[in-house]
Amino acid sequence: MAKPRHNILILNGPNLNMLGIREPEVYGLQTLTDIANDCQEYADELGFDVDFRQTNAEGELVTIIQQARGNHAALIINAGAYTHTSIAIHDALKILEVPVIEVHLSNPMAREAFRHTSYISPVAKGTICGFGGHGYILALNAVRSLLDEG
Amino acid sequence: MAKPRHNILILNGPNLNMLGIREPEVYGLQTLTDIANDCQEYADELGFDVDFRQTNAEGELVTIIQQARGNHAALIINAGAYTHTSIAIHDALKILEVPVIEVHLSNPMAREAFRHTSYISPVAKGTICGFGGHGYILALNAVRSLLDEG
Amino acid sequence: MAKPRHNILILNGPNLNMLGIREPEVYGLQTLTDIANDCQEYADELGFDVDFRQTNAEGELVTIIQQARGNHAALIINAGAYTHTSIAIHDALKILEVPVIEVHLSNPMAREAFRHTSYISPVAKGTICGFGGHGYILALNAVRSLLDEG
Amino acid sequence: MAKPRHNILILNGPNLNMLGIREPEVYGLQTLTDIANDCQEYADELGFDVDFRQTNAEGELVTIIQQARGNHAALIINAGAYTHTSIAIHDALKILEVPVIEVHLSNPMAREAFRHTSYISPVAKGTICGFGGHGYILALNAVRSLLDEG
Amino acid sequence: MAKPRHNILILNGPNLNMLGIREPEVYGLQTLTDIANDCQEYADELGFDVDFRQTNAEGELVTIIQQARGNHAALIINAGAYTHTSIAIHDALKILEVPVIEVHLSNPMAREAFRHTSYISPVAKGTICGFGGHGYILALNAVRSLLDEG
Amino acid sequence: MAKPRHNILILNGPNLNMLGIREPEVYGLQTLTDIANDCQEYADELGFDVDFRQTNAEGELVTIIQQARGNHAALIINAGAYTHTSIAIHDALKILEVPVIEVHLSNPMAREAFRHTSYISPVAKGTICGFGGHGYILALNAVRSLLDEG
Amino acid sequence: MAKPRHNILILNGPNLNMLGIREPEVYGLQTLTDIANDCQEYADELGFDVDFRQTNAEGELVTIIQQARGNHAALIINAGAYTHTSIAIHDALKILEVPVIEVHLSNPMAREAFRHTSYISPVAKGTICGFGGHGYILALNAVRSLLDEG
Amino acid sequence: MAKPRHNILILNGPNLNMLGIREPEVYGLQTLTDIANDCQEYADELGFDVDFRQTNAEGELVTIIQQARGNHAALIINAGAYTHTSIAIHDALKILEVPVIEVHLSNPMAREAFRHTSYISPVAKGTICGFGGHGYILALNAVRSLLDEG
Amino acid sequence: MAKPRHNILILNGPNLNMLGIREPEVYGLQTLTDIANDCQEYADELGFDVDFRQTNAEGELVTIIQQARGNHAALIINAGAYTHTSIAIHDALKILEVPVIEVHLSNPMAREAFRHTSYISPVAKGTICGFGGHGYILALNAVRSLLDEG
Amino acid sequence: MAKPRHNILILNGPNLNMLGIREPEVYGLQTLTDIANDCQEYADELGFDVDFRQTNAEGELVTIIQQARGNHAALIINAGAYTHTSIAIHDALKILEVPVIEVHLSNPMAREAFRHTSYISPVAKGTICGFGGHGYILALNAVRSLLDEG
Amino acid sequence: MAKPRHNILILNGPNLNMLGIREPEVYGLQTLTDIANDCQEYADELGFDVDFRQTNAEGELVTIIQQARGNHAALIINAGAYTHTSIAIHDALKILEVPVIEVHLSNPMAREAFRHTSYISPVAKGTICGFGGHGYILALNAVRSLLDEG
Amino acid sequence: MAKPRHNILILNGPNLNMLGIREPEVYGLQTLTDIANDCQEYADELGFDVDFRQTNAEGELVTIIQQARGNHAALIINAGAYTHTSIAIHDALKILEVPVIEVHLSNPMAREAFRHTSYISPVAKGTICGFGGHGYILALNAVRSLLDEG
Repeated sequence: MAKPRHNILILNGPNLNMLGIREPEVYGLQTLTDIANDCQEYADELGFDVDFRQTNAEGELVTIIQQARGNHAALIINAGAYTHTSIAIHDALKILEVPVIEVHLSNPMAREAFRHTSYISPVAKGTICGFGGHGYILALNAVRSLLDEG
Repeated sequence: MAKPRHNILILNGPNLNMLGIREPEVYGLQTLTDIANDCQEYADELGFDVDFRQTNAEGELVTIIQQARGNHAALIINAGAYTHTSIAIHDALKILEVPVIEVHLSNPMAREAFRHTSYISPVAKGTICGFGGHGYILALNAVRSLLDEG
Repeated sequence: MAKPRHNILILNGPNLNMLGIREPEVYGLQTLTDIANDCQEYADELGFDVDFRQTNAEGELVTIIQQARGNHAALIINAGAYTHTSIAIHDALKILEVPVIEVHLSNPMAREAFRHTSYISPVAKGTICGFGGHGYILALNAVRSLLDEG
Repeated sequence: MAKPRHNILILNGPNLNMLGIREPEVYGLQTLTDIANDCQEYADELGFDVDFRQTNAEGELVTIIQQARGNHAALIINAGAYTHTSIAIHDALKILEVPVIEVHLSNPMAREAFRHTSYISPVAKGTICGFGGHGYILALNAVRSLLDEG
Repeated sequence: MAKPRHNILILNGPNLNMLGIREPEVYGLQTLTDIANDCQEYADELGFDVDFRQTNAEGELVTIIQQARGNHAALIINAGAYTHTSIAIHDALKILEVPVIEVHLSNPMAREAFRHTSYISPVAKGTICGFGGHGYILALNAVRSLLDEG
Repeated sequence: MAKPRHNILILNGPNLNMLGIREPEVYGLQTLTDIANDCQEYADELGFDVDFRQTNAEGELVTIIQQARGNHAALIINAGAYTHTSIAIHDALKILEVPVIEVHLSNPMAREAFRHTSYISPVAKGTICGFGGHGYILALNAVRSLLDEG
Repeated sequence: MAKPRHNILILNGPNLNMLGIREPEVYGLQTLTDIANDCQEYADELGFDVDFRQTNAEGELVTIIQQARGNHAALIINAGAYTHTSIAIHDALKILEVPVIEVHLSNPMAREAFRHTSYISPVAKGTICGFGGHGYILALNAVRSLLDEG
Repeated sequence: MAKPRHNILILNGPNLNMLGIREPEVYGLQTLTDIANDCQEYADELGFDVDFRQTNAEGELVTIIQQARGNHAALIINAGAYTHTSIAIHDALKILEVPVIEVHLSNPMAREAFRHTSYISPVAKGTICGFGGHGYILALNAVRSLLDEG
Repeated sequence: MAKPRHNILILNGPNLNMLGIREPEVYGLQTLTDIANDCQEYADELGFDVDFRQTNAEGELVTIIQQARGNHAALIINAGAYTHTSIAIHDALKILEVPVIEVHLSNPMAREAFRHTSYISPVAKGTICGFGGHGYILALNAVRSLLDEG
Repeated sequence: MAKPRHNILILNGPNLNMLGIREPEVYGLQTLTDIANDCQEYADELGFDVDFRQTNAEGELVTIIQQARGNHAALIINAGAYTHTSIAIHDALKILEVPVIEVHLSNPMAREAFRHTSYISPVAKGTICGFGGHGYILALNAVRSLLDEG
Repeated sequence: MAKPRHNILILNGPNLNMLGIREPEVYGLQTLTDIANDCQEYADELGFDVDFRQTNAEGELVTIIQQARGNHAALIINAGAYTHTSIAIHDALKILEVPVIEVHLSNPMAREAFRHTSYISPVAKGTICGFGGHGYILALNAVRSLLDEG
Repeated sequence: MAKPRHNILILNGPNLNMLGIREPEVYGLQTLTDIANDCQEYADELGFDVDFRQTNAEGELVTIIQQARGNHAALIINAGAYTHTSIAIHDALKILEVPVIEVHLSNPMAREAFRHTSYISPVAKGTICGFGGHGYILALNAVRSLLDEG
């Protein structure tokens, strides 16, 4: 019997919709849509469906995470600035029963001190940071490996 | 002349809608709807009406608190994770002129260090924590006593 | 068969014997004896006996807590200033096997920074603070609910 | 050729809609609408159009700031309580390429310690605080001077 | 009419009974009894009676301070090590309505860091430290001056 | 009857005499004399006289502030590096009964951590920073508004 | 001539009287009386007399330590929770001229952060912790060795 | 012309040689040799050679990193416990001119506080943690992507 | 032979010249000249000459202290705000070989946190604070006692 | 059947080879060889073999601890300065399955603040410090007791 | 053509004029004049002129540093106690364009914690401390080398 | 009789062997061999022999320092990154009885916060930093001066 086709939720927090416009000399010219497309394509290779979303609102992120329950096999999250301030997202992730992968485009530990704390890390299976848009591809690869082991 | 029938606002913050689903071995099987029903029933005994609400959004909590002005005789609030991070809710509560009671299902002081700070406590009349859903009943009892004194 | 009549220990720490005299504009005119009487009366309603005690000595509080073992069904404690400094009371409460309820007349989180730490909270079932003498009534109510569930 | 008529965005965060109602003995009787009107009038004198907005929601503030790109010549922001907690707003402002002026009605450094940190200041051209509604007028004056220099 | 003869309570905390024995090369050979005698004598000159006491027990210090109410015109206290740890004594002194003078034989600020905090200072009229037994004489002098002004 | 012509003291601390020479690519070519001239001119428009001074010595700043009493209607102060270290200036300003406006050329919150504390802010009516020499003009404008209200 | 038969004081602080009852799965079934008996027996082997005491009161511990002067050749102390809070006991031990050995049943460094500080250690000759009741035996052995060297 | 066949250095720090033996219920049964084999195989697919090494000595890690200069196209490093304490390794990595990828088997942010600091992160291109042995595979994938972009 | 007539230096720091003018409801109407006169009179009784000085300048305080060497038998110093910031004065006092008495009009420990540190205390024989102008009298009394002991 | 003859590893860290030479007035004239001999002799009495080693290198300590697995029944470790800095040794000890006893010649809590932290304590069965070379004898005694219980 | 003869400013802060008198057992008998003479002599050897100054006043140090501009080829500064407290001197040094060498007679890192911070170091080319008066000679040597490298 | 020809040990820690290769725009093109040669030459002038060594291993540095005992008249040490982390080197230096001079090429106080602590400074006679390779020459000069005085 065929492996079930998992649906993976990829969730992006505040200001990630500005990618490609925001400091292009740092973050490059790749937009969030480009990343979404790369993810769709690679997910297809891995046998996944992908739900790729972005919102600037903390409460909305909480609600989307709650609704992932029963609908998604894994969650890849780049919570942007809320990574460092949101206990509400931390709590929502803790309730979720599927693997959570934390992604960051750059390396927060190499930036300002207020970006050195993550409320996502303690409730994530793993973290990938510093590889730009390719980090999402690595995260999908990691999800594949986790679900195969699982 | 009959005592005026006060309307009490009971306000719940992020992830409280997941009650009964979230770690049931810790929080029990009681849902937020169960608590709302118990509150309605007990409020009725005490001669109160109750407005029972939940939202995951910080800004929406601020707006609901602002609108309580003139419509509610007291506010019982379980701000969930925003308890520890929201100065905006702190400021909204400070403007409100009716008694505020802070409720928590569990005891935040017995959990992670980042839950040891409360921006609600300094602007609340009193705090009740650790009694699960029964904490709301105690809070209604406290409101009755405060309004009778008042 | 009749429910057993539980005996509840209500224990008060340093300076609580000065209630009614101490800053009456803040703490009101109610004395500790008034609170004791209110507790006796309400406990009677709930089907409890109550043992209501006060002492200024930390070591004596430790000894009384140790002796509660096997004699009391629950402990309501307002440890006053020792709340913030006594690991010895913390340890004594940890050994006790019945529910412990922490009570404070005012809200310590709205006072000096040195009152923001509680060695009682981590070993208490729940905490009630800010409601003056009425906090003891709420605590008895909570005990009733806990023993009924239990 | 006539100087282009710049459009200035004036953005207000949580609880600023309560101005005039909130502690009038501290903040005075001036409402946010009064300030908006004063700003319109003074902007007119300076040859500006003004877009004056308020919202209680952090995510909405982020979105409005993102949309200022290309539409406004400068941003005057009073982020209220989010000043001290929002890295998301900090990030949104950093992406914006026009001058940002931070305004506060009162002096946060003379209030509680948790108001001594600002995530807005490091990404603002300048800060004006303590002058009540007149601070917005000073901010417009500063914008005029910056655009003239620019 | 003769000035009323005030009774001054001089209260000494833990280990002060060891004076003269304890590190005599530091504290000198003067015993606590010697100091008591000097105080009696100088008090007599100033027209005071003196009640001079010592105990090692924190709770007992609290009780003695409570009982000073109505019986003593001023309190001179050398709380020894409890100076740095006892919020219970702080609270007892706060209830007392007569002037409190804090005395230390040596200068705590010139000793270990854990002696740099005093819970007595914030509730004392004044502090005298570093003058050995003569500090008590200065404290009596200060009391005389305060009662004369008063 | 004509409005009295107020005299405003504008006081500058250490190293401000180096303006125009010091890192011109950061601070511009404007000298302190240029700023003084701009202030004189704008003050004249507002109907003020201006006393514009600079000194490198902390004690001299204290003395000048003390002498402002009865001679000046307001004080605009850029205390330079003493902003972050001088409690003596803080105390002198606290004694003064006229409005104090704190000015900084750059934004101290965007510089080294040791510039994030201000002993001036808690005793100032308001603060203006980040606008270079134009900050003094804004401060004069603010003084005008405060005196008109007052 | 026979070696003098030294008398060793073994002093136990708060809650140690609960040994054997308190979390037996952690601390074992051995009671304080069992330890006292083991100590008597082993002391006898070493040619010591032993005075074995326990109290819950900080002030009483101070007094007992003071009285050890001239009566005991060494002091073995398990101050329980007062280890981490009592400067009064620290001071009493400092006055004592015989060797002080600090004992703990468990390893405080492997427990809560508030147990990581010891006011006993800086005034003790040595510390033994983590060996349960056997720690007292090791302490007696250490005393034997110290007195033999001495 | 064929792409040059890059040689990648994979460097492991203290205690990683114990993998498979160390807490197998946590880290699984996979040994470091298993990981080395998986890496060789996957590297081969990607067209890399791999040099896979382990040492317990900090100084040796420094020397190996220095020698990577000119011999390796990228460095994948799991510095184990030295991650949190070694500035010497930080300095060695900073001199190296090829991309550095930091790998951890588990998620240090979800462990003890002393593992929350990394001296590797600030000098690494990116970090991958929490995926066990699969993290090395992700790191090789990331290296491929970086060199292709390069 | 007659006792030599000692000359005592009484040194006052910044803003003490404003006494009587500064917050008279707090500090009273007594001026520094009044205190100087009281000191002269009491010093005369004790057989001292007194040199009573004030300056707002830190460097001048340092110089005056240096010159006290060989000219004064003791130094009474109220360094005002420099108490909390001046290591230079600390160093100057350390060089001086006569007794130094630190005086404060109010109790710095009962004021803002930045007044809780004293650089004078560690190099002073003793400290007297909280007794207003009478503190200088107590200090002279203490000097008498110290010189008599010799 | 005879009890198996256990082999105990006694491991010494940096600078312990200098014993007897290093500050003999503090540490005495006993060399590490003397201690080794005393240990051999006492171990023999207890029925143990002893492997007594010293090295200055952190990585070598890690390797020796790893190799203790299966070869030694217990480990007595005096890690010297690495006690306070080495997470690598902490990790190595955690993997080891036999009892670990931490020994120090002097009492680190009575020395510089940087010696107050121990990475060994949290993974040790017990700690013995302050008894010089005799501490090793006590540790062997403790091992005997643990293995007998075991 | 002859090398130009550079003039070097050697600037000394508070209490350095007391050298030789101040704790001679620590600082030796060498006076500041002795050091000045040694500097003149050695400078002559190196082909420098030297301007050697001392003042106790922070503001004066700032002014002297400002005036060094254009007149001196290098600045050697021992700012004494102002090293640890003066941001004003830090700012003045930052404006200066010639090399600054920081000198201390003793080693501040081996003294009180409040001497471990230097506001001079971050703006100095280099620091020399612990060599007494000889440190000035080393500083002149360093200046020679820096100017030669040019 | 001729002055004995002293042998000076110059010891270099991790990564100093990379000098000339490592960030040449910062550290220059001078290699460690160049510095060694300059030291040999200058030492010769001063009448010294020099032993110039480098190693990346902490334990080896400890061992070399121990062996300096009796063989070298002084130690010049640039411990590189171990300066900030190694208590083991601190302890080894403390045992050594000859003068220790600490050298750094750059100024650690002007770099990252984790380089602001030195475990070498408290046990060094003096420190020289910021002068690149010339710092070793200054250190040799200082040794000459110390041995001549000695």
